[in-house]
Amino acid sequence: MAAPIRFEVRARDGAARAATLVTAHGEVPTPAFMPVGTRAAVKAMSPDELIAMGCRLVLANAYHLALRPGPELVEQMGGVARFMGFKGAVLTDSGGFQAMSLAKINSIDEHGIVFRSHLDGSRLALTPESAVRIQEQLGSDIMMSLDECTSYPVDHARAKASMELTARWARRGLEARRSATQALFGIVQGSVYPDLRRTSAEQITALPFDGFAAGGLSVGEPKPAMLEMAALSASLMPADSPHYLMGVGTPADLIACVAMGYDLFDCVLPTRNARNGSAFTSEGRVSIKHSRYLRDERPLDPRCTCRCCTGFSRAYLRHLYVSGEILAARALTEHNLFFYAGLMREAQAAIASRTYDALSKAFAAGISEVSEQAKDHVV
Amino acid sequence: MAAPIRFEVRARDGAARAATLVTAHGEVPTPAFMPVGTRAAVKAMSPDELIAMGCRLVLANAYHLALRPGPELVEQMGGVARFMGFKGAVLTDSGGFQAMSLAKINSIDEHGIVFRSHLDGSRLALTPESAVRIQEQLGSDIMMSLDECTSYPVDHARAKASMELTARWARRGLEARRSATQALFGIVQGSVYPDLRRTSAEQITALPFDGFAAGGLSVGEPKPAMLEMAALSASLMPADSPHYLMGVGTPADLIACVAMGYDLFDCVLPTRNARNGSAFTSEGRVSIKHSRYLRDERPLDPRCTCRCCTGFSRAYLRHLYVSGEILAARALTEHNLFFYAGLMREAQAAIASRTYDALSKAFAAGISEVSEQAKDHVV
Repeated sequence: MAAPIRFEVRARDGAARAATLVTAHGEVPTPAFMPVGTRAAVKAMSPDELIAMGCRLVLANAYHLALRPGPELVEQMGGVARFMGFKGAVLTDSGGFQAMSLAKINSIDEHGIVFRSHLDGSRLALTPESAVRIQEQLGSDIMMSLDECTSYPVDHARAKASMELTARWARRGLEARRSATQALFGIVQGSVYPDLRRTSAEQITALPFDGFAAGGLSVGEPKPAMLEMAALSASLMPADSPHYLMGVGTPADLIACVAMGYDLFDCVLPTRNARNGSAFTSEGRVSIKHSRYLRDERPLDPRCTCRCCTGFSRAYLRHLYVSGEILAARALTEHNLFFYAGLMREAQAAIASRTYDALSKAFAAGISEVSEQAKDHVV
Repeated sequence: MAAPIRFEVRARDGAARAATLVTAHGEVPTPAFMPVGTRAAVKAMSPDELIAMGCRLVLANAYHLALRPGPELVEQMGGVARFMGFKGAVLTDSGGFQAMSLAKINSIDEHGIVFRSHLDGSRLALTPESAVRIQEQLGSDIMMSLDECTSYPVDHARAKASMELTARWARRGLEARRSATQALFGIVQGSVYPDLRRTSAEQITALPFDGFAAGGLSVGEPKPAMLEMAALSASLMPADSPHYLMGVGTPADLIACVAMGYDLFDCVLPTRNARNGSAFTSEGRVSIKHSRYLRDERPLDPRCTCRCCTGFSRAYLRHLYVSGEILAARALTEHNLFFYAGLMREAQAAIASRTYDALSKAFAAGISEVSEQAKDHVV
């Protein structure tokens, strides 16, 4: 039986890799950043705009889609990519993270999670088996194993118990899986404890997953701990499988974590910040509502070629934002995602030419330069 | 001195005309519907999307732009079209309608309107002279004379006084005008009284305006009265000048009023209804939130070729709308404006081939057909 995905490494530079992830819905050049399409829509964006900027893989949330419109409907409509009119691939999370963060939890035990919907209060259960079943109905190209995303701070004993539960759930999810065309990724947990990360990686990578993720990071721990645990987790993953760092992060985080050997990233930062008027640019962050942009005729990012930067001045964007126009959210979201996509393309090129270290240093230098100009606006 | 606009009639069919309106910012084929871009943005739309659907003229509101970001800023940024990144022409209203409907009026007298800003309560005055001055700063291609938009119902004596005031203001606006590149249109008032409409038309068309509008309609009067007054007003306007019916209307209204000789229209219906989940289609109105569309794989309008109809199912659009996704507003707005633009293109073609009466009848037949299917969803 053919594998549901193929991961073809084209180049390596240190631990960093440039690869092609081949899915049932097309090829994804990596390293890649996945825009978050919570409810089968990347907020404010049209799917053809994502394709136009080179995005070939988006993330959708199984929890949200399971509640509304329901996995049966999405299945009937041909799967989540077809439902949302996206001519690319989709990764779904397991739903566990949202069930634990958005819903009112009734219980988490060996069996799974029992929670109340944040929409209508109805009582629902999510098990390792149902999480896979729901994602199979959603028809995503990459499914995620149900894990317990360990919160922070947490003591060693509780982190260990949580990690062990994640491993048992991982085995059950793999056994429940029926689809031959959808990949299933396992998740390494262990909070900020190196010994637990090691054990978790041993447990999870011993299982026949199609790829591996580091979870439980960017949940409140200090940045050095995040980077240390991300690096450790990546170093323990098989070299020939895709590595996904969940929920990370800023442009600087991505540059750092590509160097560790991560291939896939997701984060709400570029889309959520955009709706709050905050843009990532080659000169650092720009908070467009600031009065300093009132009469600023320059584009958001002078080095950017996106539709927002070629079409609008900062003065106009500020006017749109202050006026509450939908176009403000559209324009800034498009720019931020274009910026992230461009960063990943630069990373791919640098790895291919074995100059990733230089890119990394230039990026860091750019940040410190920007820091001098606007201290609270660092990328 | 060259006229600020030229109006070149290409074909006539009865009173209907197909023409080209030549402005400083390009040519506008008429009959044309102007999307409403209240605050220098057509809500949810990107300016290049308007151009792509053939829209060459949008309306912006002088009242809103005068309050925020202010006419000086727009002037400094090169005028409203350049400010909003729209590669086409812009018509601005005088600000009077919004000053009377949105703001708290302190007084309306011979001098002008004194009101309080709906944004911050500041006390402001709008006179025939300042209305022209503001629009000159905004740099629109077509400016509107300050009028008193007579409310409905109103008795004959008050309607007459209001109409006479509008005529005196019209003269003052013309005298105040300095720009040689911006057209200025006069507005015929007179409420629902034929004798007042006649007198108003005589007064206004005697003045050297570049075009003429019928105002004070679609303000609450019965539809037959609106159509009768619109027809009467149009019949009294010079045949070689552009005719603009303000604030009208539904697709059926547009089809009826093009036959009367109107060339330009504006209305919030296609954009506002879109944001409320209501679409204009070749099969009548579709209220996308309705549960009947839950599993509907068909496009919004099977005969439509817009991005929304070629990319999304009704089921997906309903999901987006119910979920409060920005993409719902985007997709429905784009569809509705595409539908209106298509209707105007059909009108232009029918006038050119002298088959406007047939188009009109086919359109009416389409409506009654639809009425049979969904009584409360008539176009």
